[in-house]
Amino acid sequence: MIEGHGDDTYKYHHIKCDFSSNICVHSSHQALMDHLAAHPEMVSHYPEPEAWSLERMIAKHHDIEPKQVIVTSGATEAIYLIAQTFGRQPVIPTPTFSEYEDACRLFPCSAEKTDTNSGNGESNQMLWLCNPNNPTGEVYDQLYINRKMAEYGLVVLDLSYENYTDAFVMSPRWGCRIPYSIQIHSMTKTYGVPGLRLGYITAHESLTRQIRKHLRPWSVSSLAIEAGKFLLQHDELICKPDLQEARRLAVNLAQIPGIEVTPSQTNFMLCRMAHHTAAELKDYLAYNHQMLIRDASNFRGLTPQHFRIASQTPPENDALVDAINLFITSRNE
Amino acid sequence: MIEGHGDDTYKYHHIKCDFSSNICVHSSHQALMDHLAAHPEMVSHYPEPEAWSLERMIAKHHDIEPKQVIVTSGATEAIYLIAQTFGRQPVIPTPTFSEYEDACRLFPCSAEKTDTNSGNGESNQMLWLCNPNNPTGEVYDQLYINRKMAEYGLVVLDLSYENYTDAFVMSPRWGCRIPYSIQIHSMTKTYGVPGLRLGYITAHESLTRQIRKHLRPWSVSSLAIEAGKFLLQHDELICKPDLQEARRLAVNLAQIPGIEVTPSQTNFMLCRMAHHTAAELKDYLAYNHQMLIRDASNFRGLTPQHFRIASQTPPENDALVDAINLFITSRNE
Repeated sequence: MIEGHGDDTYKYHHIKCDFSSNICVHSSHQALMDHLAAHPEMVSHYPEPEAWSLERMIAKHHDIEPKQVIVTSGATEAIYLIAQTFGRQPVIPTPTFSEYEDACRLFPCSAEKTDTNSGNGESNQMLWLCNPNNPTGEVYDQLYINRKMAEYGLVVLDLSYENYTDAFVMSPRWGCRIPYSIQIHSMTKTYGVPGLRLGYITAHESLTRQIRKHLRPWSVSSLAIEAGKFLLQHDELICKPDLQEARRLAVNLAQIPGIEVTPSQTNFMLCRMAHHTAAELKDYLAYNHQMLIRDASNFRGLTPQHFRIASQTPPENDALVDAINLFITSRNE
Repeated sequence: MIEGHGDDTYKYHHIKCDFSSNICVHSSHQALMDHLAAHPEMVSHYPEPEAWSLERMIAKHHDIEPKQVIVTSGATEAIYLIAQTFGRQPVIPTPTFSEYEDACRLFPCSAEKTDTNSGNGESNQMLWLCNPNNPTGEVYDQLYINRKMAEYGLVVLDLSYENYTDAFVMSPRWGCRIPYSIQIHSMTKTYGVPGLRLGYITAHESLTRQIRKHLRPWSVSSLAIEAGKFLLQHDELICKPDLQEARRLAVNLAQIPGIEVTPSQTNFMLCRMAHHTAAELKDYLAYNHQMLIRDASNFRGLTPQHFRIASQTPPENDALVDAINLFITSRNE
């Protein structure tokens, strides 16, 4: 496990505004917690060995078959399960979420076990695409994905941020028809509940059948299963980032001398400073302004100058732009 | 993942008394759930990538070092992590908990990666011991364990039921001094909270260092971490099975014609019928008496005649003995 993911608020004290996590979070999860507290008996019983009841609900929600769904303890478990099941040679674009590489490194020898019949194109290569991509916020369009599906034996699409963009990403119903594509979904991101650990895989059943062999029993807690059912019935709890505000922030950041912003189609964006390091800026903002940003230098392919910002409210974003301006001005004096 | 674990109450309706799960459960977890509900902000933030804060508390509790502790999503994750890290040839006595074998089967090729320096005896063999043992309730004494430690390269001791017996099992402080023994602990069992998924490993740091490399980030939810801290501070919530009542039940079961009971030092016991199958008895009890027992025939080394019973209250145990008597009598007519 590497260190240095976002949302490391637990390491800093007195942070007032967190721009480091690209998760859009609701102001309160009290209704969810009250629902869980009303069912204390959940704690006393083992969860289903596999979260079948929640898988059935998710299948209905997407109009697909329950056997095309596997509920996991966060999208992270999905990533590790896929790496473990399909030991093909991974192809991972940069920059992207670091867990694909970490997971594939842990399971280098599972290749021998893999059924390669389901492949298309060069069947021993597995492409990992994060769509929208973390940390850039870029969205790959359907044409691009179709082309990649023709090129690679297996295409893993991490759709964790699918609700964080206006762009069309992919329908699970369409994805489940393709025997060489796996989709990862994150209830963590969709509902802003990273503390719960809840995600799921959708895929053609020839692929889910292979993945299921590697599931360990009870990997999803009763609390997470019950929370998932509650969330699926409360569409009003789906996180909807203010994308217009994110675009305004991007424009304002790009106007700071020496800051470059990669065009994003989501609420978070990748920035690069010409003359200073992200580590310096992060410390400055944390200790002087109680703001937390994501030092993105540990993404493969990026530099010590890269950082990631997730858009917050207009006043918070304005305060961030002012603070970065102050940092740049003070360092340039 | 195999099917057929205990506590499959979710498959049966109208079960009034569950003898199938060997977990001793408190009557209410309302205090724990109210505590969690009072902290809804936990849901909005990622947990620590590894549950360091809880590891520190557990270390203090056992008077060992934090680096000698790894918190896991239930003892099951601990079992799979150990199998993944140490790919030695597993030696698994029968009958015992089936997950050791399932986990070792999933990671057959990790042997090459393993540092075998820490071994003792024949270093390419890894012995798995469940102590007290599931499903028999047998306790291996210190003399036996010492002998096994001299024989095997690595001894994994699953102490999940350590609080379910009066017999001395093992102190983590002693265990952590030995560089070829790993101990698994289950907060699930100690506090009767199987719905939470919470366990931990204690071991010499030369072993925990290797295991840590295989941890995936955020495998333990914020809710489980917070619950673990709450439980550690509430000793009154530790499950203490009524072992005297369990012995009374064992005596009464053994008096039923055609029933054999393996001597147990815990609250659960393995039984064998001379003339009928556990599947028949299980269905009879579920549909006629709303009681659930554990068909133990899928434990390697056991027969279709084996079942496991976990002792409940005296009236419930008496009702079970009466019901089994009725079953035997009606079938013998």
